Amino acid sequence: MNLELQPNIEEVIGAIAAPPETYLAQARTRLDSLTKPLGSLGRLEDLAAQWFAIRQGNLTAPVSKSVYVFAADHGITAEGVSAYPAKVTQQMVLNFLSGGAAINVLARLNHVEMNVVDVGVDADLFGYAGLLDGKVRRGSRNMLREPAMSPEEVAAALAVGLTMAEAAHTKGNNLVAVGEMGIGNTAAASVMTAALTGMPAALVTGKGAGLDTEGYARKCRTVEAVVKHHFAQPAGPRKILRCAGGLEIAAMTGMMLGAARRQMAIVMDGFISTAAAAIACGLAPAVRPYLFAGHQSQEPGHRILLTHLDIEPILDLQMRLGEGSGAVLAMPVLEGAMRLYQEMATFTSAGISGATA
Amino acid sequence: MNLELQPNIEEVIGAIAAPPETYLAQARTRLDSLTKPLGSLGRLEDLAAQWFAIRQGNLTAPVSKSVYVFAADHGITAEGVSAYPAKVTQQMVLNFLSGGAAINVLARLNHVEMNVVDVGVDADLFGYAGLLDGKVRRGSRNMLREPAMSPEEVAAALAVGLTMAEAAHTKGNNLVAVGEMGIGNTAAASVMTAALTGMPAALVTGKGAGLDTEGYARKCRTVEAVVKHHFAQPAGPRKILRCAGGLEIAAMTGMMLGAARRQMAIVMDGFISTAAAAIACGLAPAVRPYLFAGHQSQEPGHRILLTHLDIEPILDLQMRLGEGSGAVLAMPVLEGAMRLYQEMATFTSAGISGATA
Repeated sequence: MNLELQPNIEEVIGAIAAPPETYLAQARTRLDSLTKPLGSLGRLEDLAAQWFAIRQGNLTAPVSKSVYVFAADHGITAEGVSAYPAKVTQQMVLNFLSGGAAINVLARLNHVEMNVVDVGVDADLFGYAGLLDGKVRRGSRNMLREPAMSPEEVAAALAVGLTMAEAAHTKGNNLVAVGEMGIGNTAAASVMTAALTGMPAALVTGKGAGLDTEGYARKCRTVEAVVKHHFAQPAGPRKILRCAGGLEIAAMTGMMLGAARRQMAIVMDGFISTAAAAIACGLAPAVRPYLFAGHQSQEPGHRILLTHLDIEPILDLQMRLGEGSGAVLAMPVLEGAMRLYQEMATFTSAGISGATA
Repeated sequence: MNLELQPNIEEVIGAIAAPPETYLAQARTRLDSLTKPLGSLGRLEDLAAQWFAIRQGNLTAPVSKSVYVFAADHGITAEGVSAYPAKVTQQMVLNFLSGGAAINVLARLNHVEMNVVDVGVDADLFGYAGLLDGKVRRGSRNMLREPAMSPEEVAAALAVGLTMAEAAHTKGNNLVAVGEMGIGNTAAASVMTAALTGMPAALVTGKGAGLDTEGYARKCRTVEAVVKHHFAQPAGPRKILRCAGGLEIAAMTGMMLGAARRQMAIVMDGFISTAAAAIACGLAPAVRPYLFAGHQSQEPGHRILLTHLDIEPILDLQMRLGEGSGAVLAMPVLEGAMRLYQEMATFTSAGISGATA
């Protein structure tokens, strides 16, 4: 990437504005006029109101969807924190490119444009057709020994995400899912969650892609040691991202900041994606009204992060795959909410009697 | 409807066969070969395996979806058990026909063929374009005074559902959602749930379309009185349906029996639809493997019925609308599960390394 053309992160953060609150009240009035018992669409009504507010009341543009899958490797894998070898990251990137991964299937089914971005895979993937090149470094550093990234690497990875957000905006996307692939990244997200919320390592650490009992114990000890090493004192979002993040996580944070600045709706995926969102909200609290939580993952830290952000997930299907799969799976529900808002008849237009009791 | 052509319910019940168990094991083997950590698709894996078993391993036919919305009025509304006047049933049927209801919007969005069947609306609706005529009677009887239906009325309503199942099968549908419209029908479903499970009236009764505190107390008392009147002794599914059901509920039971007999996958909607399914399973336990629960409704009795059937809902969005809305909203998730099963690469085909820890 041409570094001179990279967007400035501080300018983007300064330009993010939450949608005016008045749109939520306006949406409630319309929802209550539709031919259904008051409130009977449950969470769909909240989703529709949030979408209406994000669009600032302008629903003329059709929904245009894309998913961005950011991939990178993690130095922390040297500590044996994953059930799969690190080379699975590059193998899965090639699987994304050949259309055989879960996210490909779901993106095809739900008419979501699929984008794969190499932010830091530990392999030479330059020139593969269809792969967006945003490589900052071949993998992050081992956070047990040193910060996962240098300040310059963080800035470059954030800029990759900002660039993708600008590209999505230019294409006319108004609904973007943000996912990832990176062996070892649940360990990173666990450390980030501990640093963000103060929760102990054992509560924020899960089995990732499928650790056995011994591997899980090792991962918990590693997460605890990393937290002790970098976060003996409370830290802000920038330090948390730099010391305990990853290249794809920083890029996701950048994408979310850039998407919020362009008033796009953002669907988070699982644990890693939500960790990136928590950093984005730490840097710019006005990002939050643009966020939807696609699903509740099985990783225990994910629930803690969603509570931290005060966002309820749309789906809860005990998934723990990543790739943006939970986000893209939730998109038809979100679109259902939007279309109900726009297309249902009102009590007046349909000549239907109201409640009597 | 021509009564002489009506299918025989006993023959249908006798012809229903559960899919052979071997298909579930076969599906698990394939699911474990796909390029994802073992079990990481969570509930989607269960849904895909169930679909594979229902299709008896033949996935060549494309998914063909329809929703059937059965409408009828209820004599029990004379007791003031609903927040809305009974005439809303007929008004909503006309809303379905003009495309303005929630189910219309969701059916359009998800490419689900929409069917509306009058089984017992208390109005002369004959001749409305697009309305399927299966009228048995203008509303069921007041179950507080007498059985909601005569044996002949139950048989006729069941036959309406069987006929619709045959029509769906003939059209090539292999995935059908079953929903309803009928002011007063949550009261009927509450009585049915109490009779099926032995739970007290207060636990199976909800606020329906939106009763106030006084109305809710009246509904609870009415449900309790009906239970006492008809079910002082434990009763079987036939008596429960006849005394406490409704014309649209019996038709839904018939549709589910007929759909299971034709090996179609059935997506239940909320409380009423699940009450109909519980009767169908009472009559023919082999119906159960064909059932999916689209969502968890806000009606408290719905959770009790799903536990009774031992089926986990796909969505939980605090909806309480009926019309088949929760069933049709869940269809893209179900299709996602099916497509993942069929289209994902395997570890071998994609050359991806397996787990090491």
